Amino acid sequence: MANNLLQGKKGIIFGALDDKSIAWKVAERCHEEGAQIVLTNAPVALRFGQINELAAKIGAEIIPADATSMEDMENLFRRSMEIFGGPCDFVLHSIGMSLNVRKGKSYTDLNHEWMLKTFDISAMSFHRMMQVMMKLDAISEGGSILALSYIAAQRVFPDYNEMAESKALLESFARSFGYHFGTQKKVRVNTISQSPTKTTAGTGVKGFMEFFDYADKMSPLGNASSEACADYCVVMFSDLTRMVTMQNLFHDGGFSNMGMNPAVFGIEG
Amino acid sequence: MANNLLQGKKGIIFGALDDKSIAWKVAERCHEEGAQIVLTNAPVALRFGQINELAAKIGAEIIPADATSMEDMENLFRRSMEIFGGPCDFVLHSIGMSLNVRKGKSYTDLNHEWMLKTFDISAMSFHRMMQVMMKLDAISEGGSILALSYIAAQRVFPDYNEMAESKALLESFARSFGYHFGTQKKVRVNTISQSPTKTTAGTGVKGFMEFFDYADKMSPLGNASSEACADYCVVMFSDLTRMVTMQNLFHDGGFSNMGMNPAVFGIEG
Amino acid sequence: MANNLLQGKKGIIFGALDDKSIAWKVAERCHEEGAQIVLTNAPVALRFGQINELAAKIGAEIIPADATSMEDMENLFRRSMEIFGGPCDFVLHSIGMSLNVRKGKSYTDLNHEWMLKTFDISAMSFHRMMQVMMKLDAISEGGSILALSYIAAQRVFPDYNEMAESKALLESFARSFGYHFGTQKKVRVNTISQSPTKTTAGTGVKGFMEFFDYADKMSPLGNASSEACADYCVVMFSDLTRMVTMQNLFHDGGFSNMGMNPAVFGIEG
Amino acid sequence: MANNLLQGKKGIIFGALDDKSIAWKVAERCHEEGAQIVLTNAPVALRFGQINELAAKIGAEIIPADATSMEDMENLFRRSMEIFGGPCDFVLHSIGMSLNVRKGKSYTDLNHEWMLKTFDISAMSFHRMMQVMMKLDAISEGGSILALSYIAAQRVFPDYNEMAESKALLESFARSFGYHFGTQKKVRVNTISQSPTKTTAGTGVKGFMEFFDYADKMSPLGNASSEACADYCVVMFSDLTRMVTMQNLFHDGGFSNMGMNPAVFGIEG
Repeated sequence: MANNLLQGKKGIIFGALDDKSIAWKVAERCHEEGAQIVLTNAPVALRFGQINELAAKIGAEIIPADATSMEDMENLFRRSMEIFGGPCDFVLHSIGMSLNVRKGKSYTDLNHEWMLKTFDISAMSFHRMMQVMMKLDAISEGGSILALSYIAAQRVFPDYNEMAESKALLESFARSFGYHFGTQKKVRVNTISQSPTKTTAGTGVKGFMEFFDYADKMSPLGNASSEACADYCVVMFSDLTRMVTMQNLFHDGGFSNMGMNPAVFGIEG
Repeated sequence: MANNLLQGKKGIIFGALDDKSIAWKVAERCHEEGAQIVLTNAPVALRFGQINELAAKIGAEIIPADATSMEDMENLFRRSMEIFGGPCDFVLHSIGMSLNVRKGKSYTDLNHEWMLKTFDISAMSFHRMMQVMMKLDAISEGGSILALSYIAAQRVFPDYNEMAESKALLESFARSFGYHFGTQKKVRVNTISQSPTKTTAGTGVKGFMEFFDYADKMSPLGNASSEACADYCVVMFSDLTRMVTMQNLFHDGGFSNMGMNPAVFGIEG
Repeated sequence: MANNLLQGKKGIIFGALDDKSIAWKVAERCHEEGAQIVLTNAPVALRFGQINELAAKIGAEIIPADATSMEDMENLFRRSMEIFGGPCDFVLHSIGMSLNVRKGKSYTDLNHEWMLKTFDISAMSFHRMMQVMMKLDAISEGGSILALSYIAAQRVFPDYNEMAESKALLESFARSFGYHFGTQKKVRVNTISQSPTKTTAGTGVKGFMEFFDYADKMSPLGNASSEACADYCVVMFSDLTRMVTMQNLFHDGGFSNMGMNPAVFGIEG
Repeated sequence: MANNLLQGKKGIIFGALDDKSIAWKVAERCHEEGAQIVLTNAPVALRFGQINELAAKIGAEIIPADATSMEDMENLFRRSMEIFGGPCDFVLHSIGMSLNVRKGKSYTDLNHEWMLKTFDISAMSFHRMMQVMMKLDAISEGGSILALSYIAAQRVFPDYNEMAESKALLESFARSFGYHFGTQKKVRVNTISQSPTKTTAGTGVKGFMEFFDYADKMSPLGNASSEACADYCVVMFSDLTRMVTMQNLFHDGGFSNMGMNPAVFGIEG
């Protein structure tokens, strides 16, 4: 079902770990639509993941980079410019990790050092990446930058813990940097607020399956799959959405605007 | 730049008046992307407009229909099903008219009979149209319904007058009917909140040019053109956005998330 | 617990039917806080209700008025100015009625004539009332106007039916008129988006008890009672909130910002 | 104009620096309304400010505390419980400081170590404070916690720089902790999104006077003063708002819901 939507475009995808990752699907779909891809992830994630398999399949190079390191970010974008022979056209940020969640801390008993680390990895990495791109002129005029978010940025899902704050931060960076990138380079910056998705990272979180099912019933179209999300990312990277910027776009089967769905209680609407 | 995004799809476009209409551009772009189109508008609008020219160009049939008449709506969808040989796949609602604006009434001195008429034409027509489509099974599973809105539904633009309320109503119909259509038929319903656009209808409104320029400066990417809007509509009609529903999507160069832009005051950012 | 918050103020309360009405509680609380009150309701509601009892208790006069009639609105505000010896200081709009709900029509099979009537009664009455107040100079500088709304204006609750659209309309009128009243008279206009409340009108709606219980469990503080709502109205009528305008204020125990509450599923948080 | 709204209540006020501080006005007004107050601020701020003068005037004790130190927070709440003879009833968080703003860094060239520090001081201090309060049982059932925010959390004001992200974070903490505090202790947590205010901190920011004037003209009621903000805080600390939680409350003369105000351009509405 390729439509050549990204013919001739060059993109950098952060965060593909294994074939359950949204970033993995996005990389595949962008390749199908004609884009040349560079993959990147933290060195430690690269060791555990199967990213070489993906790279081989879509003819992508892999550049290891720790998103909390300015040097790594600079190296990543310099190297990608060499590979592409110039600036890229789109970027996907799909990075999120909470130390407090991983260690099983409850929201009312968090370790604040870990929280700083969580924000640094999951949200400030987005600002850092954009700052480097702007400084190095590493993205073309009219380019498109996306990050993946979740509705916990707006509403409370207790098990999501401090990742709620990370996503609120991430979406704010998209708005603020979107202004600067739009004004200076006609580059747009948006976040996609995706349904809960059965990724390797996601399914490990306490209570994940419950809220996956709850969201699925609450959403008139059901939860959006990672494949559907990849399609939406393609659209947001294409020139057809060139005037959409600084938005948080819900890709969630309608979840975000439901107040109460009788289906949650097993009642027909 | 066609990508065959709507190959084999059939769509109904309301509201193309002349070649400055957004609906006109949408019809042209959908045709380019492979769709078969039926055009419709109020009989009076058909008389004044140049729609025959568009119909000839894209091989579309024209079905006159008054969007405030249940009979006309039923006739429209029955006829379109004959023409298409079955249900349609997408619909654009681009209808708006305010009697009070036309008559120059200020917001604090409105005629409430006219207001009812304004809502009936500009917003309830959207509910009426969807009600008929559901009853006649006139749209395919997975279909996409769009209406054009404006940010006055959320924030105050004094010259927009009672059209603010019309758009608030329109967006609410999209959410409510989106639930029913999503649950029953996997059909999605969204609104696009478009930048001020120099259409024949728009430019007639008092103060239009001022707020066009203001919005253009306030928006990091400038105002979105009707051509860009047509591209976004294509995307929303395509299968690539099949899990987006009940949303109001800002297509506005970033206007909606700006608080203050130094460019409005002639200052560099 | 009176604090003399409304000492010397004069207010008009629409919509007190019986002692379960929010408007009834608001009238009582405003009286306790030192305000002089005029009560008004539709002639038919006055016949069925027990408003004389309330009027006697708080020393209020009753002025019958159909909120869909311009003449009645003018008469109401003229009469109230005679009674008060000048303009009022605050007004509560608590009016809502859906013909389609009353007749048991489903959202996908509505009668559009009835819908117009619903909007006229439930929402346009708010604009009409403010238009008359502005024309007659019937509210003091610094005055406060409130209407009661519900979160169905933002999110879908299927059983709420076309009242969702009525509330979207109502909130839009508050914003738009709030601009004009603020600019011209320093009068503020707000809506309170109240928890589902066991009023005589509310409990009659299909599915009401289910969504009352659902909302109660979803809200960290539980549903807000009509007594708590009356307290909040007092605060919004007092001078202590004189700079709050054009807002929709959720008074709902936190419901509006919950995404998922384990309590809904009988799980401890 | 005291109304005894806080008779018998005990409150802790963070962030009073000098008599231009909002926190200073809040402390005075709470005292007027019958509350007993404990003042706290960072040791360095205490040195430069005039807080002793305020403390003397309202009979408050001062407890120095660095909001980034867990030990200091624990000491603060333990000491206040001794002073009050039990838990407090309300708390105001009015803390904000951006190292990058202070050092004149532009948003596209930020130092990320400083950003972490900014978030730690301006936002995580709110979480830390609530975590300690919950652990020590330092706030009564039905208590009220407030923090001061700004609309840059939702929309872009370029000169506000990384404080936009700090406020987005702050508001997210209010929602998340509001759920836990509401469920466990019936304590509510809200933020007030205040107009730009001529505090000693505020007026130092580049471009402040421009956006103060802009906001003043854009707002139908003009900018809200710190005195009006203090009144609103009193209301939010009182029992009259006991069911309002997890909200961000705009106290801004209507700014937040304006799209365009002709007054900004010197035109009469």
